[in-house]
Amino acid sequence: MAITTETEISLWDTFELILHGPSAHPFEVELSALFQKGGRQVPCRGFYDGDGVFKVRFLADREGSWSWRTRSSVSELDGREGELTVGPAAPGRHGPVRVARQFHFSYEDGTSYRPIGTTAYAWTHQSGALEEATLETLKHSPFNKIRMCVFPKHYDYNTNEPLRYPFEGPPGGWNWRSFDTAFFRHLEKRIAELDALGVEADLILFHPYDRWGFSKMDAATDDFYLSYLTARLAAFPNVWWSLANEYDLMTAKTTADWERFAKIIQENDPWGHLRSIHNCIPFYDHTKSWVTHVSLQRVDVYKTSEATAEWRERWQKPVVIDECAYEGDINWGWGNITGEEMTRRFWEGAVRGGYVGHGETYLNNREELWWSKGGQLVGSSPERIAFLRRVLEDGPEGGLDPILMGRGYWDLPVGGVAGEYYLFYFGWFQPRFREIDLPSDREFRVDVIDTWNMTVTPLPGTVSGRVRVELPARQYMAIRAVAASRQPPPTAKG
Amino acid sequence: MAITTETEISLWDTFELILHGPSAHPFEVELSALFQKGGRQVPCRGFYDGDGVFKVRFLADREGSWSWRTRSSVSELDGREGELTVGPAAPGRHGPVRVARQFHFSYEDGTSYRPIGTTAYAWTHQSGALEEATLETLKHSPFNKIRMCVFPKHYDYNTNEPLRYPFEGPPGGWNWRSFDTAFFRHLEKRIAELDALGVEADLILFHPYDRWGFSKMDAATDDFYLSYLTARLAAFPNVWWSLANEYDLMTAKTTADWERFAKIIQENDPWGHLRSIHNCIPFYDHTKSWVTHVSLQRVDVYKTSEATAEWRERWQKPVVIDECAYEGDINWGWGNITGEEMTRRFWEGAVRGGYVGHGETYLNNREELWWSKGGQLVGSSPERIAFLRRVLEDGPEGGLDPILMGRGYWDLPVGGVAGEYYLFYFGWFQPRFREIDLPSDREFRVDVIDTWNMTVTPLPGTVSGRVRVELPARQYMAIRAVAASRQPPPTAKG
Repeated sequence: MAITTETEISLWDTFELILHGPSAHPFEVELSALFQKGGRQVPCRGFYDGDGVFKVRFLADREGSWSWRTRSSVSELDGREGELTVGPAAPGRHGPVRVARQFHFSYEDGTSYRPIGTTAYAWTHQSGALEEATLETLKHSPFNKIRMCVFPKHYDYNTNEPLRYPFEGPPGGWNWRSFDTAFFRHLEKRIAELDALGVEADLILFHPYDRWGFSKMDAATDDFYLSYLTARLAAFPNVWWSLANEYDLMTAKTTADWERFAKIIQENDPWGHLRSIHNCIPFYDHTKSWVTHVSLQRVDVYKTSEATAEWRERWQKPVVIDECAYEGDINWGWGNITGEEMTRRFWEGAVRGGYVGHGETYLNNREELWWSKGGQLVGSSPERIAFLRRVLEDGPEGGLDPILMGRGYWDLPVGGVAGEYYLFYFGWFQPRFREIDLPSDREFRVDVIDTWNMTVTPLPGTVSGRVRVELPARQYMAIRAVAASRQPPPTAKG
Repeated sequence: MAITTETEISLWDTFELILHGPSAHPFEVELSALFQKGGRQVPCRGFYDGDGVFKVRFLADREGSWSWRTRSSVSELDGREGELTVGPAAPGRHGPVRVARQFHFSYEDGTSYRPIGTTAYAWTHQSGALEEATLETLKHSPFNKIRMCVFPKHYDYNTNEPLRYPFEGPPGGWNWRSFDTAFFRHLEKRIAELDALGVEADLILFHPYDRWGFSKMDAATDDFYLSYLTARLAAFPNVWWSLANEYDLMTAKTTADWERFAKIIQENDPWGHLRSIHNCIPFYDHTKSWVTHVSLQRVDVYKTSEATAEWRERWQKPVVIDECAYEGDINWGWGNITGEEMTRRFWEGAVRGGYVGHGETYLNNREELWWSKGGQLVGSSPERIAFLRRVLEDGPEGGLDPILMGRGYWDLPVGGVAGEYYLFYFGWFQPRFREIDLPSDREFRVDVIDTWNMTVTPLPGTVSGRVRVELPARQYMAIRAVAASRQPPPTAKG
């Protein structure tokens, strides 16, 4: 992304208006700017960024000529005006991610976006070298979304002190009315770097893993923090608002709090970024209108993404299983599944029309576990997840939906677009062959896919109707059937 | 077992009274004998066995002097009398299996019995050579129970014509009032051979896989068959009555039918052998008093024996998961799990206080799949199931019960006897270490068990309280902790 103060900018750039104002109680200053283009008005909340500097950020979401005018509680910031010209988007710039086709996502410009998420909760709270390593890892990974916390994290394998804090004051003696702006500039730098890599920042606004008091702030401070954070970040194209990780473990918060937080976010985010809330045990009520998509942690130790289709039915929204457990070898069951099992869970979710997230928890002597601190990935699933991503990108532009094939498919999930594209996934089963039922009124090209060894083996010619497909009697196989009339998909990503 | 016509017999022998009677409508003849010893009276139903021979069988279940006297609808069979002396049981003879300690089993003499079942539905309907091969396989296997059908079976990979039929007449033109006694003598021979191997015959009385009409007989014929079958077999010590396999697929039968069948069986079996009924999708109402134990097929494709503890709670009876899917490579999901997965399901059930059953469905050119026809076992799970059997036999005499260890054990099932014996099972998870909580008021010996590689690695010395156990970061591991004060168990099997 580009944050710019130029007045000739491109679509999906973030324009930053810089103003100078009073330094007495600057976080109490009210500042906003109304950006207008014809009948479209975009009210943008401003914020104090230290050293007497106030900023208002605007995400350029329409081409053309815009004007802006400020309002403020202090005179030197009030009534300032200016203009802005927004040209076409630069190559690869697509805008924020939106819900599309009810259960899926696309960028605002209509380009497909299929979340292939990972998790590194506290990666922006580490040393510069480790944070750079994380970015380098992401660059070569399949992941286009990362779950990450605003606040530092205190938890197993993550007890190091962060380098920065969101509030001013010594730890334990926070000035709750005064933010440490360097903390936020650092966070923003990392989010912008993610954007440059094509990675969405699934930003966790509250979490319970805390020894500094950030999980137990009073309501006024919570709101103050949220207003400030959203003022700073809403104009970033790649931000998603995840209200909480494991909201139900935050015993100091009530449903009324979460609902109020959602309202504050909506009021302060004129671009309507994606919003969700993630559980430990009980699911939140994802039917709430502010919840754009279901972000969830599996609630059964053994059955995880196999429930994706039921969850789609239940909430009628996109299902993103942000925590299906992590590939690793630590002591807890949420952090010691194999690469095979992680890959299987990705596929089980994908063929049922959902999106599974990754994390990695292999213990090392540095206690640098990817899931928490970022750094290196050493597991066997990312390469296979990259393979899945390529399969999905070669698939239907609008994503996969579960296809109901009848009683004979009780053991074989099928995703795709009926009549056009079928992806049959065998998971941990190891059949030697399988009969599949394709429409008999058209021809299909069929491939046998080994999702673990990452091979695609086309069957000769085309077939129609009931087809017997020979399989290698190994686990983790899939069959893909694509209507022969189907054109190759348009290029999936710009 | 020994079927004998001698009058000096041993406990748990089957005494056979042979009488000669009319050959006109012999299956309509009513015949019974009352066996008496002091105040104990055992009414035994007789049956016609062809060539003018009528028989009454009696399972010697008490030592001492018995007398018997017949009753019959025909004079030459009525009022016959005799005596019988029952001496001590021969070595290895324990009597029928009973429910013990609510959720477990033992032989009638109190010796522990832990069902380690397998399935070969139609093994007694094959060639003599194949049937002998099955017995030879069982002899070298860990299995001490086999699910098997009375009627021949028609299903995938099992379309061969049987050598014998239960009714007289050409196929399709059965004389429903006249049994082919050779069929039943053959069945009994095989059941007696199982008994000699220490294998219980979990006899399936009705099943839906049928092209001969045996699944759709009228009620009178059903009852006629059941009365005859139970008269012949109730005196066999190793018979269990499984009313149906997949009862819910037998569309010609109603709940009233199953309840009537249970009543007939109870009336005709004075020794009260175990009774159950097995589902495809909906469970039968296992709270019925005639149901001695829950025999079930898993109803979720992915989550199977992990639900054992819930099922114990639900029905408050022993849980035998007779069908958790089969190790193999055929086309259907119930018949193509790996040896690893089959072994895992056995362990998941065992540590939760239940009993999982085996079956094998590897396809071969002869279409001789163990699950249906018997023959050879080629899979990798039986050897591991034998290892589990040894672990269980070294464990608490009364079997394992789930131990509730608290919230920290949400991912780690534990079975045993609290304070005495703990078996922690990690299933598909691959931790590098784990902390376990043992009572701090006594010392424990701890072993690390690799359930797949079948190794037991003792930790040095004894431990107490919270203990960190290093693990190899591989799947399928267990930890066993046994109170140091515990004596080696008494020999499990006589």
